[in-house]
Amino acid sequence: MKINENFLKIESSYLFSNIAKKVKEYSLANPEKAKDIIRLGIGDVTRPLAPACIEAMHKAVDEMSKGETFRGYPPEYGYDFLLEAIRDNDYKSRGVELDISEIFVSDGAKSDTGNIGDIFSLQNKVAICDPVYPVYVDTNVMSGRSGDKADGKWSNIYYMPCIAENKFLPQLPKEKVDLIYLCFPNNPTGMAITKAELKKWVDYANENGAVILYDAAYEAFITEDDVPHTIYEIEGAKTCAVEFKSFSKTAGFTGVRCGYTVVPHELKTADGTELNKLWARRQATKFNGVSYITQRAAEAVYSPQGKQQVREIIEYYRHNAKTIYEGLKACGFEVYGAKNSPYVWLKTPENMGSWEFFDMLLDKLQVVGTPGEGFGPNGEGYFRLTAFGSKENTEKAVERIKNYFAK
Amino acid sequence: MKINENFLKIESSYLFSNIAKKVKEYSLANPEKAKDIIRLGIGDVTRPLAPACIEAMHKAVDEMSKGETFRGYPPEYGYDFLLEAIRDNDYKSRGVELDISEIFVSDGAKSDTGNIGDIFSLQNKVAICDPVYPVYVDTNVMSGRSGDKADGKWSNIYYMPCIAENKFLPQLPKEKVDLIYLCFPNNPTGMAITKAELKKWVDYANENGAVILYDAAYEAFITEDDVPHTIYEIEGAKTCAVEFKSFSKTAGFTGVRCGYTVVPHELKTADGTELNKLWARRQATKFNGVSYITQRAAEAVYSPQGKQQVREIIEYYRHNAKTIYEGLKACGFEVYGAKNSPYVWLKTPENMGSWEFFDMLLDKLQVVGTPGEGFGPNGEGYFRLTAFGSKENTEKAVERIKNYFAK
Repeated sequence: MKINENFLKIESSYLFSNIAKKVKEYSLANPEKAKDIIRLGIGDVTRPLAPACIEAMHKAVDEMSKGETFRGYPPEYGYDFLLEAIRDNDYKSRGVELDISEIFVSDGAKSDTGNIGDIFSLQNKVAICDPVYPVYVDTNVMSGRSGDKADGKWSNIYYMPCIAENKFLPQLPKEKVDLIYLCFPNNPTGMAITKAELKKWVDYANENGAVILYDAAYEAFITEDDVPHTIYEIEGAKTCAVEFKSFSKTAGFTGVRCGYTVVPHELKTADGTELNKLWARRQATKFNGVSYITQRAAEAVYSPQGKQQVREIIEYYRHNAKTIYEGLKACGFEVYGAKNSPYVWLKTPENMGSWEFFDMLLDKLQVVGTPGEGFGPNGEGYFRLTAFGSKENTEKAVERIKNYFAK
Repeated sequence: MKINENFLKIESSYLFSNIAKKVKEYSLANPEKAKDIIRLGIGDVTRPLAPACIEAMHKAVDEMSKGETFRGYPPEYGYDFLLEAIRDNDYKSRGVELDISEIFVSDGAKSDTGNIGDIFSLQNKVAICDPVYPVYVDTNVMSGRSGDKADGKWSNIYYMPCIAENKFLPQLPKEKVDLIYLCFPNNPTGMAITKAELKKWVDYANENGAVILYDAAYEAFITEDDVPHTIYEIEGAKTCAVEFKSFSKTAGFTGVRCGYTVVPHELKTADGTELNKLWARRQATKFNGVSYITQRAAEAVYSPQGKQQVREIIEYYRHNAKTIYEGLKACGFEVYGAKNSPYVWLKTPENMGSWEFFDMLLDKLQVVGTPGEGFGPNGEGYFRLTAFGSKENTEKAVERIKNYFAK
């Protein structure tokens, strides 16, 4: 038996597993200091689920306890009640018409952005932002689409630097690319894209027969009017874009696991093959649907009470983002993001390496963040902090940073 | 952009989606008869969840409602509480020592048996039983490992006929193969394998550097002593086998979604690469763990009450299997399976084609089963009925078949 040798090209563990391991080692070596650790590294939420979701889950659990209301295998692409709620609330309300057969409910955007590669040829040229969410790169390496690594970059991946000079926005590729991963509001930089800017990408993709893989997991954090909540607000996007969304960062479902992917019927290859049909086949064959209980919880996110409760949770995190952003700015850091995002992206002081800064923050201040280098070569010299901690911990962490770095 | 052309090689929909569509069409055309339809086709359960699982889920939902007990991202490979329960109850109790790092909790055995292909080279030769659970074949076609189709068979797949002459057991391959999919108790034939027979496969795999992908999803239905509940009961299996298990058919989790995969550390390539590390990387990168609530439900399956309740559910289905098996036998059908399995595999009367028999049962008796042909060329002329319906419906279906076919 032979293994997939591409697996040997990547580091044996995923970025966030590495960080968890480093924190664990530090904690074992420094049990006293470990008690003060504040985690603003991984993008994991901390607020309890909205009461509407809790209520919906209790009800669904009860249904599973009785023969008359028990539910077995869920429909592979999601229950109609959830698909319709998504269609009406996330799309119709923004002037986007979708059919429920264009929406695929899943166990989360990470699985979907990872698995979407299954339906594309290994011959495609992939374009990614740098820095970027590691899953886009790693899954392409694992499947054999990346080429080999040299100087921190993969030979067959087209990198689009997102750096301070271009306001952390990618520039249109200068060579032919086929699959373009975009994530807005962006992870890790926290920066958003305007409708006018995104239109350029849609036009580019349509002109060049490329597909945009659009990760909108952080959409709920958008505050500005000219920032699109879905790529389908942009004219022409249905013929060139797949969109990934998640209940993780909206309704705090990181521990519940639910997201969805939109593949419009109009998105076709040059010879007319619908990508929708390919993704439908992939999901029907390699996935078995999402728990009924989870889908009822997701549906409750769209009830009037659910909407109000979720809005309050988002406000809570938004306030944290502001606390971090303003606190760091006040003591001289160069900071980005936060406005339409739960992420704050900061330049490390005195050109410190991002892992060096990680170690320092952990060791001196017991604050855990994510080193920019983990997101790609252009992340070096930057650092990500998240707004998903508690208000108290966030304030405490900012206070520690302020005290330490105050000139 | 180019698509993965391998997707165009397979039919656009999955076997069970096809059956669902046929039943829907029949129901629309025959609304009156449709009221009498009894579904013994798809292997979906119908009994409500065990009270121990319901209780565990209510408790877990409540924990998610409070800040102090809220859980975010689950550990990628499962919570220790569940991994330990699996290790102790499904392995240690049968004399098999596993470390929890060898167990990976997932959203089900279908996903895992489908995704496991990611870690293997496309150059491997795959061996499958014929008839077989379609996911093994379809996922290999989709990834490009199957070659092309001619006369109902894929050129690069080695078929192991499981037919009446060999008691529906596969024979050791006569040419070199690398990945061997085995499922026991078998889906669709319902036949089990003895320890002595399985030992031959383990020895073969170890001698030839092959890997056995062992699907034990129906293990809970085993009644006979010499039938292994896990492949690791067989000496030498840890160096050649990956095992897939599911809570779907044990505890009725088809609508809850939980299973697990075991990849022993001893399972290595010739040059010493652990497959465990590759699967760990695959799961950490393309999967984000299973809902906390679901994992608590799975843990409850192993509590004293949970065990007792689950045993009763299995007994209920076993009784149905017996009803079908004996009923059909009594009216002259050639029947197999049932003894260690929820499936009854029957020869169609008068050499009727299996889809023809499907149409006839649906049209004349309003009973839905699964045509053997859907499981592979050697399934032609056979038909699968499942024991997962209600006692009343199962008896009614058997009665209808008896009345119709009684000579």
